[in-house]
Amino acid sequence: MTQPLVPSFPLSSQRFSVSYRLAGDERTAYQRALDICLEQTVEIPDALVPAGMIRSHILGRIETFEPQAEGGYAARISYAVEIAGRDLTQLLNVLFGNISIKKGIRAEWLDLPEVMLRSFRGPRFGRDGLRERLGVPSRPLLCTALKPLGLSPEGLADLAYGCARGGIDIIKDDHGLADQVFARFEDRVASCAQAVARANHETGLRAIYVPNVTAPFDEIRARAHFAKDHGSGGLLVAPGLAGFDAMRYLADDEHLALPILSHPAFQGTYVLHPSSGLSHQLLFGQLPRLAGADATIFPNFGGRFGFTREECAEIARGAVVDMGPIKGIFPTPGGGMSLERVPEMVRCYSADVVLLIGGGLMTPGSDLTENCRRFRRLVENGAPPA
Amino acid sequence: MTQPLVPSFPLSSQRFSVSYRLAGDERTAYQRALDICLEQTVEIPDALVPAGMIRSHILGRIETFEPQAEGGYAARISYAVEIAGRDLTQLLNVLFGNISIKKGIRAEWLDLPEVMLRSFRGPRFGRDGLRERLGVPSRPLLCTALKPLGLSPEGLADLAYGCARGGIDIIKDDHGLADQVFARFEDRVASCAQAVARANHETGLRAIYVPNVTAPFDEIRARAHFAKDHGSGGLLVAPGLAGFDAMRYLADDEHLALPILSHPAFQGTYVLHPSSGLSHQLLFGQLPRLAGADATIFPNFGGRFGFTREECAEIARGAVVDMGPIKGIFPTPGGGMSLERVPEMVRCYSADVVLLIGGGLMTPGSDLTENCRRFRRLVENGAPPA
Repeated sequence: MTQPLVPSFPLSSQRFSVSYRLAGDERTAYQRALDICLEQTVEIPDALVPAGMIRSHILGRIETFEPQAEGGYAARISYAVEIAGRDLTQLLNVLFGNISIKKGIRAEWLDLPEVMLRSFRGPRFGRDGLRERLGVPSRPLLCTALKPLGLSPEGLADLAYGCARGGIDIIKDDHGLADQVFARFEDRVASCAQAVARANHETGLRAIYVPNVTAPFDEIRARAHFAKDHGSGGLLVAPGLAGFDAMRYLADDEHLALPILSHPAFQGTYVLHPSSGLSHQLLFGQLPRLAGADATIFPNFGGRFGFTREECAEIARGAVVDMGPIKGIFPTPGGGMSLERVPEMVRCYSADVVLLIGGGLMTPGSDLTENCRRFRRLVENGAPPA
Repeated sequence: MTQPLVPSFPLSSQRFSVSYRLAGDERTAYQRALDICLEQTVEIPDALVPAGMIRSHILGRIETFEPQAEGGYAARISYAVEIAGRDLTQLLNVLFGNISIKKGIRAEWLDLPEVMLRSFRGPRFGRDGLRERLGVPSRPLLCTALKPLGLSPEGLADLAYGCARGGIDIIKDDHGLADQVFARFEDRVASCAQAVARANHETGLRAIYVPNVTAPFDEIRARAHFAKDHGSGGLLVAPGLAGFDAMRYLADDEHLALPILSHPAFQGTYVLHPSSGLSHQLLFGQLPRLAGADATIFPNFGGRFGFTREECAEIARGAVVDMGPIKGIFPTPGGGMSLERVPEMVRCYSADVVLLIGGGLMTPGSDLTENCRRFRRLVENGAPPA
């Protein structure tokens, strides 16, 4: 057989890079970095890498390698832009595909050159666009979730109406709502969107209903369009279940043109262990931004999940860190939040935040709409609760 | 506002269940189990769960709770089948959506009742179907990967031809091959499929070329059909990148009807830590089977990834464990394998295995086709290498 053929045309020599945190002493960590260069590109031992374009361009390249204050080393490794191109799925593959299976490697930051950043639309609205759409120029945005699972479309619509009457800006489906017999997708979406529209008509506000369109592969597009056609004001997608590129596809659809909320279901494992997986900001900041989310939902510190305040602050940074033409988005902390914590959350995240309170608005014996109004007063006044 | 409404029709009372491994002492672990029942269904505190259908059926239910020899507790938790229905994406969400974000919970086994098993086609071919298609009734199947990234379509086709001439059964793309400028998807697939067909014509064998169709959301279907139309004999999909349901969609497509290989890219983090994520058999056994894979690729023990022999054996069990009408599939260990290890692998996995050797066939200074022939002799003779 003949020698393997390598294309004769040159690559652009432009590269993107990923910063990895590597466990171990200097020698071990450096070996991990060398290994990433091979594993994420040619996937053959170094001795077999052919000279020429493949060795000089395709092979990953260690750009920097430095000890970290918290232990271990940080390596920035670059890859030829042509390996990923405009393909988000393949970008994720190069970023962390096979090395997800190896211990001691955590992907922390992604640096894309202008040519790649320009090939992704990113968030269609971003923070400014979402504020404009909701008519809320400066205060924190309010979000709640319709639950529990098991309610009928009418039951969910009643809740949606109550929340919209109470001044909530974004009323989203709980992410467990799919297309169940007790609340079919189409019935639920039509009922809830209508209920929110009715409330808006009465209040003069601009609340939006955001249904969950995380769905079977071949139904995602149809559900999103049904939602749009029936008055939904946004879409909820869980990229850990549907794939990041499903979200990108919905964000790019000119006929939808709806704000997108990213939900963290099925993704948590990536951030649970500091020596493996992805960093909080990458998973809940840069990646959903690239994939077109306008707001990124994640568990707030001090709620029923275990994120620390610093991890949440890191996500908030990732939501707005400079990515050239890719817009900044809203950090959307939630998960066991209560009204009592609103002032603290605003202090932590600033007013550029979507505050998500679900069950915390449903205190037994109290009125949902009244609780929503109290939630709204808290962010309008910026004052601690009485 | 009115009371939340609950549908008046009854649910079937059929339930599926998930076995979780829970960290901590008895009290802590039991608390985790109770928490899962809420978190994965109603997502509100227990005090707010309404009586009636939601409390009696929708809420998760602890069926068993037992201490484990290796520490911690095992809880089997059941959910109403109507929560997930026929929707694989939603099944994954109930299985592990929000609790992926919590430490100390690992999903280990999935038990579906007949009514749910019958709603998934699962693998179209399974082990027997794939053997029949390849004309290999009993010996281990041989698989290799076309690499390195950076070769032209002609370079890759040359390799494919050499491997098919050498008697490899399944010649797959390296999972890093997408649609790059140096090897466009359509050029590569047409060239490689043609090269394998030419070799088959010469050898009388039935090797198949299996291109990677892990792709942007809106191109997956088209790539798979292009592959089919141009003579590919199977499809490679990485569900960690494209989503499990993308694979299910391709497996269900009657016009494709091609064997599917599942690739573990981007999924490794789920199994790296024993106290969180998913079990090896669930991630690489039951889940890809439900999603229609006919063979499940995973890193073999003793290769360049860190799986243990016991973890690999667990995957092999998950690939064939009784799932009613869902066919058993081929464990496909790979990742830094060499010819020298073939006898050991056959002893470990039995002859019902696909052996994946990539770079190990490309030893410098040796002939690829000759190495493939040696690989084949090893499994035909079942004898250790000279």
